[in-house]
Amino acid sequence: MNEAQLVARVRELFSARIGDDAAIVGDQVYTTDMLVEDVDFTRATPLRFVARKSLAVNLSDIAAMGAKPELALLSLALPEWAREQADELLTAYAGAAKEHGVEIIGGDFSRAENLTISVAAVGRIVTRPLLRSGAKRGDRIYLSRPIGGAAAGLQLLEKSADSYAEREFVESAIRRQFDPEPELALGVALAAIPEVTSCIDVSDGLSTDLHHLCDASSCGAEIEKERIPMFPDLLAYGPKLGIRVRDAVLHGGEEYALLFTASLPESQLSARLGRPVYAIGRITSERGVLLKENGIARPLEAGGFDHFA
Amino acid sequence: MNEAQLVARVRELFSARIGDDAAIVGDQVYTTDMLVEDVDFTRATPLRFVARKSLAVNLSDIAAMGAKPELALLSLALPEWAREQADELLTAYAGAAKEHGVEIIGGDFSRAENLTISVAAVGRIVTRPLLRSGAKRGDRIYLSRPIGGAAAGLQLLEKSADSYAEREFVESAIRRQFDPEPELALGVALAAIPEVTSCIDVSDGLSTDLHHLCDASSCGAEIEKERIPMFPDLLAYGPKLGIRVRDAVLHGGEEYALLFTASLPESQLSARLGRPVYAIGRITSERGVLLKENGIARPLEAGGFDHFA
Repeated sequence: MNEAQLVARVRELFSARIGDDAAIVGDQVYTTDMLVEDVDFTRATPLRFVARKSLAVNLSDIAAMGAKPELALLSLALPEWAREQADELLTAYAGAAKEHGVEIIGGDFSRAENLTISVAAVGRIVTRPLLRSGAKRGDRIYLSRPIGGAAAGLQLLEKSADSYAEREFVESAIRRQFDPEPELALGVALAAIPEVTSCIDVSDGLSTDLHHLCDASSCGAEIEKERIPMFPDLLAYGPKLGIRVRDAVLHGGEEYALLFTASLPESQLSARLGRPVYAIGRITSERGVLLKENGIARPLEAGGFDHFA
Repeated sequence: MNEAQLVARVRELFSARIGDDAAIVGDQVYTTDMLVEDVDFTRATPLRFVARKSLAVNLSDIAAMGAKPELALLSLALPEWAREQADELLTAYAGAAKEHGVEIIGGDFSRAENLTISVAAVGRIVTRPLLRSGAKRGDRIYLSRPIGGAAAGLQLLEKSADSYAEREFVESAIRRQFDPEPELALGVALAAIPEVTSCIDVSDGLSTDLHHLCDASSCGAEIEKERIPMFPDLLAYGPKLGIRVRDAVLHGGEEYALLFTASLPESQLSARLGRPVYAIGRITSERGVLLKENGIARPLEAGGFDHFA
């Protein structure tokens, strides 16, 4: 079974609540995510970033539900090298939890050959939950912020830069990859706006997550390449540094921007939120995702990551 | 850092709610436990038992809090051999969840060299929470059922038996190791009896968990070796089969019996519960755990498992 088949089997066997970024039970939402050394990060990644990211990816799922994260539980399987740095790891968790207003209420330790971290997080629905399934024909499709940086950062980990400006770009892209920022305030703010119809976080990549959203909403989408906001300087320095810019933007995962739909135009929605958000296309009634580029619309397949592909 | 030091650092850095079998938030309790191949089980363990046990150990933590388990989340890092049997694994989770009245509301998949499973579980407090910290001098110390079988089962995995009776014993001990039964009904029933003062589950071993309970309650304990209920036939067949019976009973982990204290005598408490429970000693005011054997009381050190020892 590949990952999608496994997930389908889980939905079949387990709860009907499974299928969104987090499961809704009463006024709470629950999610879990696991990071494994040599799959999701390498030993070269500073442990404080592994800690921060493993928490952030869970909190992003809660933000995508329009909920406010409150609690987290950690399971850590530590190889010897990581045990020697356990204090750095735990201190980073404490710092990140404080930053995000989350209380870490439990943990479990085991050992393993590869550092393996599982986080479970619980959030509270403040106004209403945001689902993947509410998008309607004609809704605008939004991104919360420029994307492509996380995928670029991953590719840049072993590259060297020639100039100061390039180095600055490389560092900011690697930071985006190592230390993603979940859109916690935005998730709650979107849920409070009735015209916002659906939401997901960009964890698998824009193409894959837009397919997820359309599948859940039984609709299609058409987005415009030129309107997708790109990570700063990605176009200026990316190609020179060997980055596949198009892939990074369309298919790069681990962005943790929010991808959502609303019946409001960009200027109105940005004004209501007091911050910019980026309209990149429209929801259509025909199934499938189209990418319009240089005036021509072509199908955009899901190009995201499969753990078992 | 060893495991105890890590846990101490977690309590220092994170929430004051950490320290019991599960964390109490409002009327809910939360816990998480991780099982790792080659640490907590081997590839020879049938996957359905790995699934059942990983759920059971979490539900046992909730039972020890006197709460009723309701929800669970799974994180599975699957090596290729386990992916081929993923359906067996997921079906076993669905069966075990149904059996225990728990809804599995979320999951996450990754891959790994060694099968690694993290479960987080949520329970609801029905009457009041049971803590480790409520034991009082003079309280009787109880075990919910005979112990020693799980540790014996672990030692018997590669032993062969001579007779039918021995084979029956071997099988039941291995079953106790592979497929532990959390005391879900008992936990909730104990919480409803005001005279029950503290509770913990026997996951690290009687000696270690009794030390945990006494440390949390700022008291000591004296238990009688002759009163500890032993797994059926452990004394009859164990020694012949090479089992260290004394170690299995006093220090063997993964039992998931409940260890608790109450101010009621055994006959009254058993009658109130409608099932047998076993008084094995008394809470004392002097710190430390004593084991009385052949009329002589000697200190009983914590002999439990440390993942990093």
